[in-house]
This record gives sequence, C-alpha cells and structure tokens, in this order.
Amino acid sequence: MDKQLQLFISDKTPQIDDEMNRLIASEKSPANLKDSMLYSVKAGGKRIRPLLVLAVLEDFDKVSGDDLKVACASELIHTYSLIHDDLPCMDDDDFRRGKPTNHKVYGEATAVLAGDALQTRAFGILASLQHTSSEKMVKLITLLANASGANGMVGGQILDMEGETALLSLPELEEVHMQKTGALLSFCIEAGAILADASESQLMQLREYARNIGLAFQIKDDILDVTSTTEQLGKTANSDAASDKSTYPSLLGLEGAQQQLEKYHKNAIESLSFLGKENAMLKLFADYIVHRNA
Amino acid sequence: MDKQLQLFISDKTPQIDDEMNRLIASEKSPANLKDSMLYSVKAGGKRIRPLLVLAVLEDFDKVSGDDLKVACASELIHTYSLIHDDLPCMDDDDFRRGKPTNHKVYGEATAVLAGDALQTRAFGILASLQHTSSEKMVKLITLLANASGANGMVGGQILDMEGETALLSLPELEEVHMQKTGALLSFCIEAGAILADASESQLMQLREYARNIGLAFQIKDDILDVTSTTEQLGKTANSDAASDKSTYPSLLGLEGAQQQLEKYHKNAIESLSFLGKENAMLKLFADYIVHRNA
Repeated sequence: MDKQLQLFISDKTPQIDDEMNRLIASEKSPANLKDSMLYSVKAGGKRIRPLLVLAVLEDFDKVSGDDLKVACASELIHTYSLIHDDLPCMDDDDFRRGKPTNHKVYGEATAVLAGDALQTRAFGILASLQHTSSEKMVKLITLLANASGANGMVGGQILDMEGETALLSLPELEEVHMQKTGALLSFCIEAGAILADASESQLMQLREYARNIGLAFQIKDDILDVTSTTEQLGKTANSDAASDKSTYPSLLGLEGAQQQLEKYHKNAIESLSFLGKENAMLKLFADYIVHRNA
Repeated sequence: MDKQLQLFISDKTPQIDDEMNRLIASEKSPANLKDSMLYSVKAGGKRIRPLLVLAVLEDFDKVSGDDLKVACASELIHTYSLIHDDLPCMDDDDFRRGKPTNHKVYGEATAVLAGDALQTRAFGILASLQHTSSEKMVKLITLLANASGANGMVGGQILDMEGETALLSLPELEEVHMQKTGALLSFCIEAGAILADASESQLMQLREYARNIGLAFQIKDDILDVTSTTEQLGKTANSDAASDKSTYPSLLGLEGAQQQLEKYHKNAIESLSFLGKENAMLKLFADYIVHRNA
C-alpha cells in the first residue's frame, strides 16, 4: 500500500473507531442491545466507507467539524446490513471478519434488532450534526435513504439473493452490485463532497469516480473469493463457486474479470483529473481497492 | 365510537392508505421486495399513529401540505416493526390482522429486508417534504430516530423480550411500554405539533397527553388480550398468559388494570385543557383507545 494512504488510514481509522463507539455507547439503551450493537461496530473491517468520506474532504483541503459523524453514519449502515446479511435466513454465516457473527453471540432476535437500531442511529446522527446547515443535513439524509433503501443497498441484496438461483447477464450483475455495494460507496463520496462544498460539476465527476470504484470494489471481491483462502479473507473463501452464484469470474473468466477491473480503475482515476493532484487520496484509494489482498 | 371521530377516521383513513401505497409504489425497487413491502402496508390496521398526527393538526385548526407524508412515515416505522416482530426468531407469529404474516408469504429473508427498507423509506420521506422547512425536517427526523431506535421502540422490544423470562415490577413494565409503544405514539403527537407550529408550553402539554395515551393504549391491549377471542382481535388471544408474560392484568389483576387505564385516560384528557375545546379530536381519540374492543 502507498505510504501516504497508509499514513492517512492509520491516522483516521482509530478516530473513526472511537467515534463509532462513542456514538453507540452514548445512546441510552438496554445493556444487551447496546452490547450487541457495539460488538459488530467493534468487529473491525477496513472502514473503507468512512475513510472515503474523509478522503474527499482531504482532497478538497476542507475541514468539517462533522466529518467523523457523517463518516460513521455510513459505516453504521454498512454494519447493520452485515448483521442482517449474516442471519440464518439470509447468508447464514457463522463468521465475519474472523469472529462469530452477531446472531451466533447474541441470538437471532437481538441481532435483528441491533441491525434495526444501527440503521436508526445512522439517520439520527445525520439529523443532529452541530456544524452543518439543516439544508445540508436534509440532503445527506435523502442521499443516505436513497443509497441504502429499496432502490439501493437493500434492493441490491434482494437482487443478489435472486441471482443465487438464476444465471445473470453482465448488465444484470452490474445492476446488482451498483445497488448492493455501489450505492452506499457513492453516498460516501457525495456526502464528503457536500461537506466540502463541491460544485455541481465536481459532484458529477465524483459520482463517476464512485460508480467506477464501486464496481471495481465488487469485481475485486469476486476475484479474491476465487483466489484467496478463508484465512486470508477472514470469511469463507470460494463461497460463490460453492453456491453457483453469478460473479465476474464466472461470467468473464478470471482474466476477463481482471481486465474489467483495470478498466474501472482507469475510469475512476481519470474522473479525478479535475482535482489537479497527482496523488489525490481518492486516487490512492482506487489503487488500494484494486490491489488489496483481502 | 363517537360520531365526530368516526367521520374523521373514515375521511382520513383512505387518504392515509392511498398515500402509503403511493410512497412505496413510487419508489423504484425490485418487484418482489416492493410486493412484500406493499403487502404489509396494505394489511390494514387501525392507522392510529398517522391518525394521531392528523388529529393534532385538526385540533390546532392548521393545515400542512406535508401532513399525510409525515403521518405515513410513522405508520411505515410501525409496519416495519411488526414485520420484524412477527419473524420466527422473534414472536414467531403466523397471522397478523387476520392475514398470514409477511415472512409466511414472502419468506424470512425478504421479510427482514422489507422491514429494513420500510424503515429507510420513513426517514427518506421526512427528508424530502415539499412544504416544510429544512429545520423542521431535521427536527422531525431527530424525533423519529429517538422514538424508534435503541432508546425507543427497538429498545422496548428488547426489554419486552427480556420481560418474557423475568417477572417485571410495575415501573419496569411501564418502562417497557413507554419505549416499545409509547415512544412512537409520542412522536406522532409531537410531529403533528411541529407541523402545527405549537408553542413550547403547548408541546409540553401534548407530551403529557402522549405519555398517558401511550400507557393507556398498552393497558387496553393487555386487557383485551385477556378478555377477547382470537377472532375479535385478529391475532392470537390470551398469548400473554400462555407465555407467562408480565402484563398489567397479571401484576394488578383485571380490575386494577382497569383502574390504572382510567387514571391515564383522565390525565390525558386533562392535559388537553389548553386547547379550550370540549370535543377535541385528541380527546375523542383518548376515549376511543380506552373503549375499543380490538
């Protein structure tokens, strides 16, 4: 990983972790529910979503007193979706990031409710920012609702489930990923741009960037599922092949998937030219997404 | 039921139903997910929450172009909570309002996701009101998040589950209900008050009203569970006694519960005196909550 990105990540990640913990721990709630929420919040992960929010501000040389909160809201949505995805009635996963999944520790009922409450908290956080105008808060909430609801992440999850029993075409597969993973990543980029007061034309470029890294992210996930071990991934490897699921490698072959990945990577970087920075943090992130090993 | 209230309900309920359907149907989302969301939205119910929002505006003689949307947001949250509550890992109910529960028709995975997406939609709706200032939208969203999250409805659901295996004291039982049912009812009253530009002192009176009808509502539910048949209720009767759950009748006896109900009813009505109306719609609602048969 690039040194500059590494520094950024090692500087920001503990701040994100602390803020996430604080945002959950500070809310009055039944002990068992709070424990369950904190368990998944503390389960780690790469924090790519909140880091992307902060990377946009970094590239715009802007500071917002609410950057961490907005960043964390995106990660709380991601975390809730993981808890629900792991449930026995969904993917039925016993491990996530090398640890027992939420329902294995707290039981299914509490896991459902912890996911529910994490979603609620994300919206609550965006509605109580201290350094952001009400107009911007409303914009952020609208974007997050669109990105994470029936036409975004949740819709993508449904399409993904349906895709497990039907062979998808490449456009159909991209639609699944644009919704399931891409929409929330796009929210992160747009949210950062709103906090950074980006212009409409800059926003359009950033949307293009987000679309491309979103798809690149998923292709890379699919490739890693084929080429990595369970230990490397911290989750069950080769799970897609085991379930006959349509993936980029299954539709395009491993080499074709790799080429597609490189195309999206290139597009993403080109859409950042307006920044006029050779080593924009968002560029380094695109590189990282494409070259990561887990 | 009082004639005036009956007219109000029969006028408003179809408007609420239409708007709820429209708000879900208008969102682009996978067909199966949308069907599942609409199934529970159309499953009926008394629509008490949205009607309360509208009743506040009625009593203030105020009109808001967004009244129906705000009203529906509260009902979407209620609907999502019912879908999740009915899941096999929670209450494991096969019937709700006389119809098969969502997961019995669409499967558990889709039911979880339909609930998730209904929650998201509720917040999305409150962030895209057309006739309400951003400041008010942010206030409504903050209130809804507090009412429905870990310190509100979802927290209450956890406490309720814990209460099924432990004998609760009366204050503990009230805490459960204040969170599980009362918080969202309070949101409805406060949301109506915000749209109606109520003063801070009026808001305080209305909070008192909401607290009292919330508790009255639950006591009445507990009493009906003991005194009604499954057919009358549209859900399994005597389920509380069957599960050894702490309820008002189990703690106070049926007569004691009835007295408590009347106390809250009286308090609710007294807190409405500032309206200076003999037959305020909120007063008629309090009467209805206490005297209903299902």
